[in-house]
Amino acid sequence: MNLQNDLILRTARGEKTERTPVWLMRQAGRILPEYRKVRAKTGGFKELVETPELACEVTIQPVDILGVDAAIIFSDILVIPEAMGLPYQMVESKGPWFEKTIKNAQDIENLKIAQGDDLQYVLEAIKLTKNELNGRVPLIGFAGAPWTIFAYMIEGGGSKTFSKAKKFFYTYPKESHLLLQKITDSTINYLKAQIIAGADMLQIFDSWAGILSPDQYKEFALPYINQICNAANEVPVTVFAKGAFFVRKEMGKLNCRTIGLDWNMDPVESRALIGEDKTLQGNLDPCVLYADFSTIKKETEKMLRNFGAHKHIANLGHGVYPDINPDNVKCFIDTVKNFKH
Amino acid sequence: MNLQNDLILRTARGEKTERTPVWLMRQAGRILPEYRKVRAKTGGFKELVETPELACEVTIQPVDILGVDAAIIFSDILVIPEAMGLPYQMVESKGPWFEKTIKNAQDIENLKIAQGDDLQYVLEAIKLTKNELNGRVPLIGFAGAPWTIFAYMIEGGGSKTFSKAKKFFYTYPKESHLLLQKITDSTINYLKAQIIAGADMLQIFDSWAGILSPDQYKEFALPYINQICNAANEVPVTVFAKGAFFVRKEMGKLNCRTIGLDWNMDPVESRALIGEDKTLQGNLDPCVLYADFSTIKKETEKMLRNFGAHKHIANLGHGVYPDINPDNVKCFIDTVKNFKH
Repeated sequence: MNLQNDLILRTARGEKTERTPVWLMRQAGRILPEYRKVRAKTGGFKELVETPELACEVTIQPVDILGVDAAIIFSDILVIPEAMGLPYQMVESKGPWFEKTIKNAQDIENLKIAQGDDLQYVLEAIKLTKNELNGRVPLIGFAGAPWTIFAYMIEGGGSKTFSKAKKFFYTYPKESHLLLQKITDSTINYLKAQIIAGADMLQIFDSWAGILSPDQYKEFALPYINQICNAANEVPVTVFAKGAFFVRKEMGKLNCRTIGLDWNMDPVESRALIGEDKTLQGNLDPCVLYADFSTIKKETEKMLRNFGAHKHIANLGHGVYPDINPDNVKCFIDTVKNFKH
Repeated sequence: MNLQNDLILRTARGEKTERTPVWLMRQAGRILPEYRKVRAKTGGFKELVETPELACEVTIQPVDILGVDAAIIFSDILVIPEAMGLPYQMVESKGPWFEKTIKNAQDIENLKIAQGDDLQYVLEAIKLTKNELNGRVPLIGFAGAPWTIFAYMIEGGGSKTFSKAKKFFYTYPKESHLLLQKITDSTINYLKAQIIAGADMLQIFDSWAGILSPDQYKEFALPYINQICNAANEVPVTVFAKGAFFVRKEMGKLNCRTIGLDWNMDPVESRALIGEDKTLQGNLDPCVLYADFSTIKKETEKMLRNFGAHKHIANLGHGVYPDINPDNVKCFIDTVKNFKH
């Protein structure tokens, strides 16, 4: 199927384009009243993730309502631990929770390596969405980075310090690598299946990258991201490692097309560290969208000038906060679309 | 009173010293069974903070038990908002909570500027501790940085994103500056009173620095830290802005003696950015203390080599986690003390 708008794919590949493409992390979600209406019909977040027709519906909403240049499949990074043998629950206003966690080598041994088939509901949602989108914009698939998934598997939920997970690295380094490899193999299977199902590009989210020291990140995180980039790159891949300012130079050497920046990372400095080859994605402070239209416009334009006319995909530096007014999101998107470099 | 061990003061002043001094953020606290015993006699954390004899006792414990080169007064950064008119509670296993928060200009108008006298219990604890220490090691006083205090005043407690506080910056920039100035004036009064009471050095904790964008940090955080450094520097001042990797160059220009680094910040890169003048403090990953003795020793020695022989105060890159074994803390301290550059 030919895409009517392939701006984001051309930008990711490094081509010069007529304008900067734009989408938002968490664009399919609680900011939209239309999303909340669909969700209210279900038993909650997880049922929505696991029902392809509904996941498809909320994935497409921001394309219709906000006018973004890409859709991202509505899902969760925690489908992978579940497919490996650790089911999760999403507890309202508390976040994810795992009944079983990884405590020792035997627990790791007991985990299976997930196959694409184990996540049939996601693949089904991707196929449906591709069909429904009918070529309007590309569809982004995604997965969590191995360290972030590892962190949830050890902690059993969110944490301020993820000290249990980091303790595991220091006390069981060999077992840590075994577990990270199992997660990586599962993730590669999953992402390859997403490509076959129709994903036009992929993003790897390393949400807890900033918790690790530079040494730990280079030992326990980056090599596994690298494996994924080498194995599942039939489509352009974006790596977004939140807080990992300290490995931007190394990120420039990954076999991927785009590096995501959070709002702490200066675009000009990041470009110098990452080099000229990659496309950069980001990085407006999500809180700017609380401001009035003129501030949103001013800050967005400043960001666009800082990144320059090419090899930039406009986005926030993190997921959009759920209580942001959709009109303010629209102001951000329209500012990007109307900007002349 | 003459100090028998003034290693940390000489190092902070930039002098060459016989070895690297060492202490730990949160060294007076839950890691020590002796602390937990004192605390069990009270109604909780806040009563301990507000009872000078007990605050003195737990302040000195790590000097006796762990052998650190400095004591830090047992207190909390939230005594300032309380002295300004917003009382806080420390909710067990949940953290701080404010009944009243700042919502508008009138709320800011209603706040008073704290005077040293308003925090008599802290000053009393400092005097008692100085007396009890009897010159064994220097005593560190401290306060929160204005942005971090501002964040608690708006949010009313901890937060993952501090989006309410950042929204306040974008929606009420003028009022934000008024509030930050009131906090700054209060903090200067408080720190000056700490010096008079006997504090030998001071530390400013900007715990939530890493939440702000570089632009916001330069507008709403750094200028107020700068005011404090200019006003209360009769003793050496340390600025520790966790996560503010993006303003290390600017930190090098503050009128303070020491810059604290968190465990994400590379010592060599930080030295290059901050310049040769400042002493650096930090920055072992607090999770290293979960490992075995040989790993702790190896990682601590690697850190010491990275910082070099002079202008370095050894510490963790964050407060010590409460469930760390005190023997492991002792291993860290002894490694620093026995290391030959």
